[in-house]
Amino acid sequence: MRVHIPVHRRWGDQDALGHINNVSLMKLLEEARIRAFWRDGSGDSPVAVFDADTVSTGGRLATLIARQEVEYLTPVPYAKDPLDVQVWIGKLGGSSAELCYEVFGDGGSLYARATTVVVLVDTATGRPTRLTPEIRAAWASYVEDPITYRR
Amino acid sequence: MRVHIPVHRRWGDQDALGHINNVSLMKLLEEARIRAFWRDGSGDSPVAVFDADTVSTGGRLATLIARQEVEYLTPVPYAKDPLDVQVWIGKLGGSSAELCYEVFGDGGSLYARATTVVVLVDTATGRPTRLTPEIRAAWASYVEDPITYRR
Amino acid sequence: MRVHIPVHRRWGDQDALGHINNVSLMKLLEEARIRAFWRDGSGDSPVAVFDADTVSTGGRLATLIARQEVEYLTPVPYAKDPLDVQVWIGKLGGSSAELCYEVFGDGGSLYARATTVVVLVDTATGRPTRLTPEIRAAWASYVEDPITYRR
Amino acid sequence: MRVHIPVHRRWGDQDALGHINNVSLMKLLEEARIRAFWRDGSGDSPVAVFDADTVSTGGRLATLIARQEVEYLTPVPYAKDPLDVQVWIGKLGGSSAELCYEVFGDGGSLYARATTVVVLVDTATGRPTRLTPEIRAAWASYVEDPITYRR
Repeated sequence: MRVHIPVHRRWGDQDALGHINNVSLMKLLEEARIRAFWRDGSGDSPVAVFDADTVSTGGRLATLIARQEVEYLTPVPYAKDPLDVQVWIGKLGGSSAELCYEVFGDGGSLYARATTVVVLVDTATGRPTRLTPEIRAAWASYVEDPITYRR
Repeated sequence: MRVHIPVHRRWGDQDALGHINNVSLMKLLEEARIRAFWRDGSGDSPVAVFDADTVSTGGRLATLIARQEVEYLTPVPYAKDPLDVQVWIGKLGGSSAELCYEVFGDGGSLYARATTVVVLVDTATGRPTRLTPEIRAAWASYVEDPITYRR
Repeated sequence: MRVHIPVHRRWGDQDALGHINNVSLMKLLEEARIRAFWRDGSGDSPVAVFDADTVSTGGRLATLIARQEVEYLTPVPYAKDPLDVQVWIGKLGGSSAELCYEVFGDGGSLYARATTVVVLVDTATGRPTRLTPEIRAAWASYVEDPITYRR
Repeated sequence: MRVHIPVHRRWGDQDALGHINNVSLMKLLEEARIRAFWRDGSGDSPVAVFDADTVSTGGRLATLIARQEVEYLTPVPYAKDPLDVQVWIGKLGGSSAELCYEVFGDGGSLYARATTVVVLVDTATGRPTRLTPEIRAAWASYVEDPITYRR
């Protein structure tokens, strides 16, 4: 069970090599993550559990990125079509989760695979805080094996 | 007659003020311009006249930006819906054109108005080169009054 | 009287044409503006009058961008050296100012000229608020003719 | 033996949480990598072995990113001072190398640790090509243990 998030490339994501830049690709993963996991009340994905204020200053909870890993399989061209970013949960920890992505596009090419470890933090104390039973319930069906990298 | 180009914001377009950054908004205009004026054979807009190689190194023609102007009317929030970037041609010169944009979104708010002057350049000589009759024909119905700024 | 702000390009500021992208150049202007006008207590420029919280959420005052204009004179290459962004005040209004820039680099080339209109806003009311006598005093010696564009 | 590369943050690298964005930090690593490993004849670092055309279209050789990993230790604030990005070579392969980074700043805080696997590719064949004896000689003194991540 994966969530499919369409994410549009931009011509400006290309670098001087004429491909979508490797860092820009991580910007696309960030956008897929926001669209998958943060709810705004309109057409939310089934794994959308975080309120908008966890990704802005002043909220009581914040989601911080602790770790990222990405494997680039083939250069990504610019095109007007969105990429199909497939997202699932590779591991559920006490106050963190390992989010996994595979990026497909343009006739089914697998362009990249990536992992982001997100930690839920209480902004008052600056310390990690436990994922709630509601979050665990919403995510349970989307837990799948984490990515095995070739490294 | 305007071309309507839907362009998606990204959460990462926001700056530390929690709005879509004013420079990021110009990145959205760039994307609207590419989607409107460059053709790639799939669902091209009626004003798409430039081949992909005019926006990459090594092409015989290049489109350079000579001037830009933008007026920001109200801060743009992040949302998952695309903005409606409306594009038209404010002035057709010999080897250049003034492209105009109005950016609408989220219930019809007019967020910004902008102008970009694009010059067609022959990369062999580095000099401006004339817009072809084909370009003029394709664009003729989309010429409208340029933007009058409040400055 | 101008303030000279060295601003470093990044290789990643280039686009698929192999030049510093026209929007990236505006990002460099933003950085020059922050370095020139916002004070952080360490080596502040003579026109640094805004506290850091005018450029973050939650401050009592915010500086919003109302208008920008930029004229690109020649493509900017990537290089490790900083550009010399020269900044001055083209016009002092009641609650706004027109900031002017000329971007020089690489042996003295004038790459671009630009203007940003910044408005000081009271975040409690969302309305413009007057530049203080202190701001006017600090800026008085840096008021010079605004840029005359070729448009 | 590490190479120290000063890299400037930009105010615009911040996201809506008011910190240097996690993806922007990778943009800073990209800039450190370019400044460390690509030569342009002016003040080149001791590990600068690649010509500028390996990072632009049209060159005979290209350096592609195969893998990246980054561990974020503490949020990075914006400041005018450059970060001290320390770079070394964690592993030298036949046609690839594992570049390692530690990002320090603002009184010696270790903000992040990262790894990038770069592959040298022959653009005519699209296949990996061997690092030359010259590259190996230049890099030999900068090979150090790769990063051990906490994952």
